[in-house]
Amino acid sequence: MKVSQLLGMRFKEKPAGCESANHILMIRGGYIKQVASGIFSFYPPMRRVTRKIEAIIREEMDRIDGQEVLFPVVMPASLWQESGRYDSIGSEMVRFTDRNGAKNVLGMTHEEASVQLTRDTATSYQNYPFMIYQIQTKFRDEPRCRGGLIRVREFTMKDAYSFHTSQEDLERYYQRCLEAYHRIFARVGVPEVVAVQSDSGMMGGSVSHEFMLLTDIGEDTIVLCDSCGYRANMEAAECIVTNESVPEQPLTKVATPGVKTIEDLCQFAHITALQTAKAVVYQRNCDDSYVIAFVRGDLEVNETKLRNHLGCEVHPALDIDPESGICPGSIGPLGLPEGVTVVFDRSLKGCSMLYCGANEDGYHYGGLSMERDLPGAELVDIAKAVSGGICPVCGKPHLRISRGVEVGNIFQLGTKYTKSMEMTYLDEKGERQYPIMGCYGIGVGRLAASVCEAHHDDYGPLWPMTIAPWQVGVCALHRNKGDVQAKADALYAQLQAAGVEVLYDDRTVSAGSMFSDADLLGAPLRLVVSPKTCSKGVVEFSARDKSFRKDISFTGDDFSAVVEAVKAEIAARMAALNG
Amino acid sequence: MKVSQLLGMRFKEKPAGCESANHILMIRGGYIKQVASGIFSFYPPMRRVTRKIEAIIREEMDRIDGQEVLFPVVMPASLWQESGRYDSIGSEMVRFTDRNGAKNVLGMTHEEASVQLTRDTATSYQNYPFMIYQIQTKFRDEPRCRGGLIRVREFTMKDAYSFHTSQEDLERYYQRCLEAYHRIFARVGVPEVVAVQSDSGMMGGSVSHEFMLLTDIGEDTIVLCDSCGYRANMEAAECIVTNESVPEQPLTKVATPGVKTIEDLCQFAHITALQTAKAVVYQRNCDDSYVIAFVRGDLEVNETKLRNHLGCEVHPALDIDPESGICPGSIGPLGLPEGVTVVFDRSLKGCSMLYCGANEDGYHYGGLSMERDLPGAELVDIAKAVSGGICPVCGKPHLRISRGVEVGNIFQLGTKYTKSMEMTYLDEKGERQYPIMGCYGIGVGRLAASVCEAHHDDYGPLWPMTIAPWQVGVCALHRNKGDVQAKADALYAQLQAAGVEVLYDDRTVSAGSMFSDADLLGAPLRLVVSPKTCSKGVVEFSARDKSFRKDISFTGDDFSAVVEAVKAEIAARMAALNG
Repeated sequence: MKVSQLLGMRFKEKPAGCESANHILMIRGGYIKQVASGIFSFYPPMRRVTRKIEAIIREEMDRIDGQEVLFPVVMPASLWQESGRYDSIGSEMVRFTDRNGAKNVLGMTHEEASVQLTRDTATSYQNYPFMIYQIQTKFRDEPRCRGGLIRVREFTMKDAYSFHTSQEDLERYYQRCLEAYHRIFARVGVPEVVAVQSDSGMMGGSVSHEFMLLTDIGEDTIVLCDSCGYRANMEAAECIVTNESVPEQPLTKVATPGVKTIEDLCQFAHITALQTAKAVVYQRNCDDSYVIAFVRGDLEVNETKLRNHLGCEVHPALDIDPESGICPGSIGPLGLPEGVTVVFDRSLKGCSMLYCGANEDGYHYGGLSMERDLPGAELVDIAKAVSGGICPVCGKPHLRISRGVEVGNIFQLGTKYTKSMEMTYLDEKGERQYPIMGCYGIGVGRLAASVCEAHHDDYGPLWPMTIAPWQVGVCALHRNKGDVQAKADALYAQLQAAGVEVLYDDRTVSAGSMFSDADLLGAPLRLVVSPKTCSKGVVEFSARDKSFRKDISFTGDDFSAVVEAVKAEIAARMAALNG
Repeated sequence: MKVSQLLGMRFKEKPAGCESANHILMIRGGYIKQVASGIFSFYPPMRRVTRKIEAIIREEMDRIDGQEVLFPVVMPASLWQESGRYDSIGSEMVRFTDRNGAKNVLGMTHEEASVQLTRDTATSYQNYPFMIYQIQTKFRDEPRCRGGLIRVREFTMKDAYSFHTSQEDLERYYQRCLEAYHRIFARVGVPEVVAVQSDSGMMGGSVSHEFMLLTDIGEDTIVLCDSCGYRANMEAAECIVTNESVPEQPLTKVATPGVKTIEDLCQFAHITALQTAKAVVYQRNCDDSYVIAFVRGDLEVNETKLRNHLGCEVHPALDIDPESGICPGSIGPLGLPEGVTVVFDRSLKGCSMLYCGANEDGYHYGGLSMERDLPGAELVDIAKAVSGGICPVCGKPHLRISRGVEVGNIFQLGTKYTKSMEMTYLDEKGERQYPIMGCYGIGVGRLAASVCEAHHDDYGPLWPMTIAPWQVGVCALHRNKGDVQAKADALYAQLQAAGVEVLYDDRTVSAGSMFSDADLLGAPLRLVVSPKTCSKGVVEFSARDKSFRKDISFTGDDFSAVVEAVKAEIAARMAALNG
């Protein structure tokens, strides 16, 4: 490819409205173009990157016996009504009515489609296990798009679905897929991606993992243990804290004029937040009924865990009905009105001498003892894990909090979809059974952006050889001088003949422009032909990552030594990544 | 791939509701599964076929300097409002409102997106010409889906857009693309596809060609000249007929009680339809105003040509307003009410002695002379071409009518999109100009179905080697007898090691089931291992198209002679198709 013919422009300036490095560089380098919020077109360099990522994903999916299929983007609502998700998923799913009045959705995931495709054909235990996958466009109407391709509405995704006759078989396959995912991330150049336990969310099922690239721009919060390697998404992480044992004191109602927050209370009573029970008020989405969560005053409620405990969606109660009997600013566990659901976090276990609201304006209780005053209270895990908290695996207080971008996920779905959609097979005894499913996703564009985020400098992306849009860039400096043009043309032709992917800058622009464009387009290797190198009978060969720079001789129009050096470097880098 | 693990079922019975051979075989062979009307999922064999077609298309697009990009499926309405097509395209375009209240469309073509992607970057004549393409999902809300993948609502399409600084440059590129299309169709195994002149329809522009596979199941009507090779879609074909010269007679009003149709009139007056002027009444879609088209009585109106002549959409007038002054059953060109637009087809040129309606119930005129009685009438081409009609190129009366499936199209778009969307560049003189566009489409799934339609027998598709899901099938008959299983396993392993794409039927089913499944899955080559062949120390090697059948020897577990014969046959067939 010649740069003079390459579609797209490169920019020196930081584009407006871009914060993360990958977004800035993908715009500056002419990789992507926004069409609408969270909707992008790809210029040729980005399409080359994503095609290479797709090829690596295909190889690894085929290697674990995946069979490639294709599901539609548009699906009838009836298919999603079978699983119940037509109603349970909110406005992130696009719904539309077609010209015949039929309701349809845009696919945001394809569990339903995978069951529809296979339920008529996989009717005997002998058909199991199997895994099918596709690489296809998806649409989720995200309210907040950000970070270029990191969080978008339309995206290309590899989604895979496996079907099994036993939980053990699913777990074996799940492990194989987890290993395939680690190979994929290593091959595209981000071996540092970690698998973390996650909440299954709308997918259903129990065990699930997210693959996280740890980076400050990530919008997921990850809990890690530096001692034992425990890793979990904040949404799913257990919160374990201990409480000092202190002698009980009598329960006392205290006048607390003007005290509305935990901070006010601590200041008023000369205590720390650990000695308070904080109330957070929610409402169920279905009927607006109230749910009050109590956590130790220094902790926050993990709404995902609260939802999972309640088994329904809730939202923070922003306006509390004055007739509800709930007294904002002074809510406590004793004397709450009827009909309010109360949930206690286990951080309150064994606490005595707690301060809490008295459900009466201007009053709080002191000396609350959980065991004495609330003997029947069930204590559950609904608090957010904290830095320095106790690791649920090794028990050491070494938890650390980090940010991460989710580049893939795997779920054990169980029989949620096969049961609701009546997919069955006959087992060896001739009995009807529901197959057990797993599902496995990777966002292609987000992965490309994440690799850029992980590997770049101020001048552009440092693409790993496996997914670089071109393997080598040829810069012809001062092409009008001497035989630079002739030599560079010959070098380009010989590299192409050897099957090397070359981006040849054949323009008559300054060396500065040429190098800054080459940096942005990110070929891992670079060859410079200039009047100076020609006079020495050499080509300058260097790496975008600055790991080497050397001269290689050529003879007349014979660049075979250069071609061989380039091929050897490419092969070495490919081998290092592909393992 | 082992058949025991392959997802999908094969059927002996013709499935209900399928008429065309490709639809029947794609269902019977486990290639596709309907999800909704015109929406299909692909099983692994079909995905393998379409991936191979996509690879061939990519190679040929790259060969004519195409650069692969990716446009979104979902686009903002505002983009389509820029070109005016948000309003001009009807209900075949899906429109929906997103969670933020913004209007969006599902992409059915990407002219607007291609201009949006390039207008900021291709600002100098030096950036031209260029061509960009994508292979992506599209959705058109077709009212009538049929023929399996032949006419669907959701489909994968390769769409390409080229940009030029002169009409000459566009025409040169258009010719290159036309040749690339012929190579694509030849390589996928349908060299018989013909390019026909077509109407540009909603795409705009003037010159366009459709690539047609001539087959009875086609829904397009093609006009062909057997003498000179002229080919056009009926929508675009010129209609040329001659009229015998006969002496004029006086115009006479005749009472014609009960005469309502051309047939009635011919019977009443003892004439042929050639001696009548037939009136067909339309209404403009915009304001329901009446348009009356007159054609010679033996011909039909070509509505596409009528629309193009009028420059607006029209529909047949099913209920004529009694107050309009139009007299159904007796409509003629003389004495029509004011405000009615009249269009005369040139088939009426020079006619005298015509019978026509008198615009009075129960009366017709005889002896109408176009030149004498309608001296100012403009005669235009609005009739459908007919079998035996005159070829507009060579002038011989050898036109033939055929049916065809459109597997691709190419359009010269001119500046319709660049003007409406304000895409300009500076020419060599520094003057602002609008680039000239071409666009080029191929439907991937429809092409796969068309190849099957063109090449099949009663037992299954006869896939060409270039796009067959697998190159060779291995059938192990009576695998439990003797060393059949061991030999077939060894053969399978050695073929795979040699890079051959093998489908290995490793099941314990009857020879009949095995062969009928092999026929449906359509590998062009077949190897049979059975107790009989093993006892002779041979493998039976044959072609799905019955072109040969021979025994090839093996020694112990060494199948190298078989592998070599298979590789040679694959190479020969690939070379024959790839040219």
